[in-house]
Amino acid sequence: MSSKTNSGNFFEDFRLGQEIVHATPRTITEGDTALYTALYGSRFAVPSSDMFAMSLGYQGAPVDDLLVFHMVFGKTVPDISLNAVANLGYAAGRFAGAVYPGDTLRSVSRVIGLKENSNGKTGVVYVHSTGLNQRDEPVLDYVRWVMVNKGDVSAAPPETVIPDLDPYVGEKELLVPDGLDLTGYDTTLAGSDLLWGDYEAGDRIDHLDGMTIEEADHMMATRLYQNTAKVHFNQHSQGAGRFGRRIVYGGHVISLARALSFNGLANAFRVAAINGGTHVAPTFAGDTIYAWTEVLGKTALPDRRDLGALRLRTVATKNQDCAAFPDRDSDGKPDPSVVLELDYAVLIPRITDKDPLR
Amino acid sequence: MSSKTNSGNFFEDFRLGQEIVHATPRTITEGDTALYTALYGSRFAVPSSDMFAMSLGYQGAPVDDLLVFHMVFGKTVPDISLNAVANLGYAAGRFAGAVYPGDTLRSVSRVIGLKENSNGKTGVVYVHSTGLNQRDEPVLDYVRWVMVNKGDVSAAPPETVIPDLDPYVGEKELLVPDGLDLTGYDTTLAGSDLLWGDYEAGDRIDHLDGMTIEEADHMMATRLYQNTAKVHFNQHSQGAGRFGRRIVYGGHVISLARALSFNGLANAFRVAAINGGTHVAPTFAGDTIYAWTEVLGKTALPDRRDLGALRLRTVATKNQDCAAFPDRDSDGKPDPSVVLELDYAVLIPRITDKDPLR
Amino acid sequence: MSSKTNSGNFFEDFRLGQEIVHATPRTITEGDTALYTALYGSRFAVPSSDMFAMSLGYQGAPVDDLLVFHMVFGKTVPDISLNAVANLGYAAGRFAGAVYPGDTLRSVSRVIGLKENSNGKTGVVYVHSTGLNQRDEPVLDYVRWVMVNKGDVSAAPPETVIPDLDPYVGEKELLVPDGLDLTGYDTTLAGSDLLWGDYEAGDRIDHLDGMTIEEADHMMATRLYQNTAKVHFNQHSQGAGRFGRRIVYGGHVISLARALSFNGLANAFRVAAINGGTHVAPTFAGDTIYAWTEVLGKTALPDRRDLGALRLRTVATKNQDCAAFPDRDSDGKPDPSVVLELDYAVLIPRITDKDPLR
Repeated sequence: MSSKTNSGNFFEDFRLGQEIVHATPRTITEGDTALYTALYGSRFAVPSSDMFAMSLGYQGAPVDDLLVFHMVFGKTVPDISLNAVANLGYAAGRFAGAVYPGDTLRSVSRVIGLKENSNGKTGVVYVHSTGLNQRDEPVLDYVRWVMVNKGDVSAAPPETVIPDLDPYVGEKELLVPDGLDLTGYDTTLAGSDLLWGDYEAGDRIDHLDGMTIEEADHMMATRLYQNTAKVHFNQHSQGAGRFGRRIVYGGHVISLARALSFNGLANAFRVAAINGGTHVAPTFAGDTIYAWTEVLGKTALPDRRDLGALRLRTVATKNQDCAAFPDRDSDGKPDPSVVLELDYAVLIPRITDKDPLR
Repeated sequence: MSSKTNSGNFFEDFRLGQEIVHATPRTITEGDTALYTALYGSRFAVPSSDMFAMSLGYQGAPVDDLLVFHMVFGKTVPDISLNAVANLGYAAGRFAGAVYPGDTLRSVSRVIGLKENSNGKTGVVYVHSTGLNQRDEPVLDYVRWVMVNKGDVSAAPPETVIPDLDPYVGEKELLVPDGLDLTGYDTTLAGSDLLWGDYEAGDRIDHLDGMTIEEADHMMATRLYQNTAKVHFNQHSQGAGRFGRRIVYGGHVISLARALSFNGLANAFRVAAINGGTHVAPTFAGDTIYAWTEVLGKTALPDRRDLGALRLRTVATKNQDCAAFPDRDSDGKPDPSVVLELDYAVLIPRITDKDPLR
Repeated sequence: MSSKTNSGNFFEDFRLGQEIVHATPRTITEGDTALYTALYGSRFAVPSSDMFAMSLGYQGAPVDDLLVFHMVFGKTVPDISLNAVANLGYAAGRFAGAVYPGDTLRSVSRVIGLKENSNGKTGVVYVHSTGLNQRDEPVLDYVRWVMVNKGDVSAAPPETVIPDLDPYVGEKELLVPDGLDLTGYDTTLAGSDLLWGDYEAGDRIDHLDGMTIEEADHMMATRLYQNTAKVHFNQHSQGAGRFGRRIVYGGHVISLARALSFNGLANAFRVAAINGGTHVAPTFAGDTIYAWTEVLGKTALPDRRDLGALRLRTVATKNQDCAAFPDRDSDGKPDPSVVLELDYAVLIPRITDKDPLR
């Protein structure tokens, strides 16, 4: 009987090079984007306003980049991480063309690395996942690695293959959606005068505000993404578990941090890449999330005077404001308040019609 | 003054044969369908993806059948069950054509049975309710019976009429939306290879997962359905009531059970009938809902090789997983964990292009 | 570093006559309207049904008037009231043309009054705020005054200017959206037979129902409106504050009261004006909101036989039903249960095709 249900893959079920087509394609609608706003309070002008977006060459307000990420990611959970012990990291995340309400997304993954742990009970699976739209165009791809339980501890270990991953997405892979021209960007409506030229590597920005998470919030978000990871939803079983609590989906914290980062990075209108991310500690309902950002670098893009890229490292904390920029200490040990480190690239206007230096 | 407000109908206000046109027509939108996903995490491919649905002959992703049910049902509450003591049962629920975002639904009911209880204080009202779209086409009809308080205990009892209800909806009344052809159904994208032929009467499926309900979840759902039953919303008055708690709308539990049933019934793309349903015990915020399903029977449909019907009985429990299939004992007494029994029919693909036996 | 972030304006930052263009234009979608229904359970037929609205001359179901208010208001918060001590009042609120899903709103404000308080630490700022659509047509304007902290207590006080505000919006300024003809209004579908002629000044209506607020509800609402006022979201900082709790956005209570008022005012299909409003006491999650309404007056509108206006005063209470119409006592001291007094005008059908007196 139980063979009719999906108990998820165990470590020994994965094969190097295996291709997995994930279930439940999803048409993203204006309902999803409204819920995204209601869940995070994001105020970036581009995904908020059709008129603003169209003034830059979009066909309308695009779907928030991180909502695209969560939708693509959510589909992979039943096949990749239902029996995961830990979500270890992300790398090489690249956002491609804009996604609009009405587009239908599906996800496929390829196993690119396997390494059994020395305890013989778990192993690390590396997958390269791609989100595709209804025209089979990629809208996002990324690498993720997770620690997965073995179902049968006597199963023979696979050959160890660890993929060679770049530390960050190179400038040539930072894609600008077709047809964009940022020269008409209205900084007043966007909420800040700060453009690409105003940021320097080493800048640190405290995003000031904090947001408390409720159980209903994070569960509603994670269900919206059709992400089925059990640890987020079932207090009855989690109550008997390690934390005695439901754990908040790590991507929920990423979206909160991005929304908070508006205060200081209001013109960072597009996430172009996710270089790496670590969920340093679990987050629970009742925690209040704060964030700060360090500018790791800035990059001019080939043939573009209207926009440039910033490489950012955003740190999110819980129950600790970020006035003192809580971080790792000199031994690399994270401050106990830190829950997330995210290394990513954003696009930001560089020279606009309103720029006096133009 | 208070005559300007609606205090609901009491038992003596109902007349056999009475027709009631319910208030507040509702255009169902993509916003409603996104909220439905966020509230239950349903992963059935047909209501999730325009492309998937169109590959089967739908005009786009139809509105989830149970969202249609809740919308039609919600409108009947102010007239039928505002003074209800208990929602006793459902029968003869038939889903007709597909409902799409943009369709406007309204509800009408006819009183088809009345029986005063021997205590002289309450009575049972049987109504046949129909949901109609903007073209006056029925999209759903069902029978419901509720126990309603008398407002005036001295009111004379009506003649007792109890409608003769079939135990289940017959195969000729299991309607397939016009234009559907399931032969191109993609089982990979749908998440399961199990088709009509893979299920047999007597199969029992533990749906494995559990979902904890928050107050915000069930109230948001019930408000979305414009269902005004007081017991769901008012902690100030309910705190002094029988349970000291707000009671979760029974339909919320039905939708949770259906969403959980994806794990084991992923291809049951359409609810075609509700044969009967009982809310065995009340559910409260904080409860975790699990579900299991028994296949009661299977039916080939006339002139259809591409799909068949399954008659299912889904049992939902609270705070008890369903590995042991909690149920009624030999005396018919339900296991204390059981909150819902639902007898219904689903449509499921039978032979597809990918089927090796074709 | 911190200069990259917005800490909001302090009292001395405002200048009489100053014009402020607020950030983050917003396209309102069907997703927003569905969320509005899910948050308040409103049952007025016009914003609920495309078909009903079109039968009156609307292009489709318009966006709920108060959702328009919250969207326009939310944008003003980062510039006007981020450092506010108290939101003191509203006046002269006028709703203009209908707003439909797909319209993009932005907000601008003009400082029309300033008065430093005698303590030298705070001052009152009066702003006239206007919401504009993508055709630069006003959809709503209103006056609001807030008490704002001084950032530098040594800053010289401005000349005191207090605007001269009418006690209520005059009948000539009660705008009926273009093209409306209420003669076909269907009172059955709308849920009540009570028209303009059935209400008299002095009528008092207890709206009967109560609705309990959850933290997730009010935060989701306030984020949907992109309202960034810190007191609503951050339990970590508010826990150390005056109330030890997050405070519910006052507009959330206004919308709850309006939704509750359906029971007694079902045909008040349009809010035409906000004459004044006071948040008498703070509301917190866990509170149950009730409401009652007094009819302050009724007005025939020039050249309109199909509709008229009612001037209403709705009082919302917490954790106290309104059977006894809790109000101010003879000294003007409000009943301790009162949280909101709202003086506003609604449009309501006057003579319809179904009216026997026609």
